Amino acid sequence: MTETIKRYRTGQRMSQVVEVPAGASMLHFAGQISSDRTLDLDGQTRNILAKLDTMLEEAGSERAKIVSAMIWLSDIRTRHQVNAIWDEWVPEGAAPARACVEARLAEPTDLVEIQIVAIK
Amino acid sequence: MTETIKRYRTGQRMSQVVEVPAGASMLHFAGQISSDRTLDLDGQTRNILAKLDTMLEEAGSERAKIVSAMIWLSDIRTRHQVNAIWDEWVPEGAAPARACVEARLAEPTDLVEIQIVAIK
Amino acid sequence: MTETIKRYRTGQRMSQVVEVPAGASMLHFAGQISSDRTLDLDGQTRNILAKLDTMLEEAGSERAKIVSAMIWLSDIRTRHQVNAIWDEWVPEGAAPARACVEARLAEPTDLVEIQIVAIK
Repeated sequence: MTETIKRYRTGQRMSQVVEVPAGASMLHFAGQISSDRTLDLDGQTRNILAKLDTMLEEAGSERAKIVSAMIWLSDIRTRHQVNAIWDEWVPEGAAPARACVEARLAEPTDLVEIQIVAIK
Repeated sequence: MTETIKRYRTGQRMSQVVEVPAGASMLHFAGQISSDRTLDLDGQTRNILAKLDTMLEEAGSERAKIVSAMIWLSDIRTRHQVNAIWDEWVPEGAAPARACVEARLAEPTDLVEIQIVAIK
Repeated sequence: MTETIKRYRTGQRMSQVVEVPAGASMLHFAGQISSDRTLDLDGQTRNILAKLDTMLEEAGSERAKIVSAMIWLSDIRTRHQVNAIWDEWVPEGAAPARACVEARLAEPTDLVEIQIVAIK
């Protein structure tokens, strides 16, 4: 249950601190890029979040159990676009800790990469 | 107690490996930037570390219980300046694991961002 | 034992999700660069992986118990070279979650940095 996660200074985008309860099984994800690299930034972001939903479910978890998220953008100035989609995707009251910085990604067409840690 | 954390190859700046004891509650923090973006690099670094002290205390933790720290600098050549402040801030014998790389941060005025994981 | 780690969508390079069993002691490593900065990319990569083997053993762990790996490259286009060495180093069926992005590292001669999280 998501009640086992304690969050501090929580907003819709992120919590400043997320407490993983003792004894929780943790899920470490690989960094996810869009499975369709021809998509624009909005499309790539939605593609990644859909992949995360699928993979969370496969591993017996869900969005509300994400502890921490790392977002890399090929251009940090595009973060407002990604944030708008992210803010809708995150369940109300269950935002993970988060960091977002710029980095050159595997291919020039990769505009965003997201990596998460969750509990079961 | 900080005795529950085991550190390997520990220096004043970082430990090469930090062992989180089984059964510890973990605190995942969001990446922290300076709340005052007009400060110079020293000021931003001190501002972030003061924020971390406050947030650690709020969550029932403390500096000596930091497990790992990620530092992003907008210019990696400035790391010696940040390290000098960091080395004083870290409690003797309780340095976390650490990595420090360059990345473009949210705003051009953001010179440093620090993200930590701690135990309670 | 490595049986305690559960992996989802596993390949030789990485698993998409790696599950840390409840109650495992976790080892957080510092980002590792080559101890010999005059080496070429292949040499630096092998140097780092050898360091990780030593440090894993010191802490009572091993390659097959790595949960997650972060790889920074000073030039992301060199990743195929690093991947070839990495793929051989990772024990079959025991690949960690992974992300790999470009970042400027401490010194211009640092071509690759690797940071891992493992269980005991």
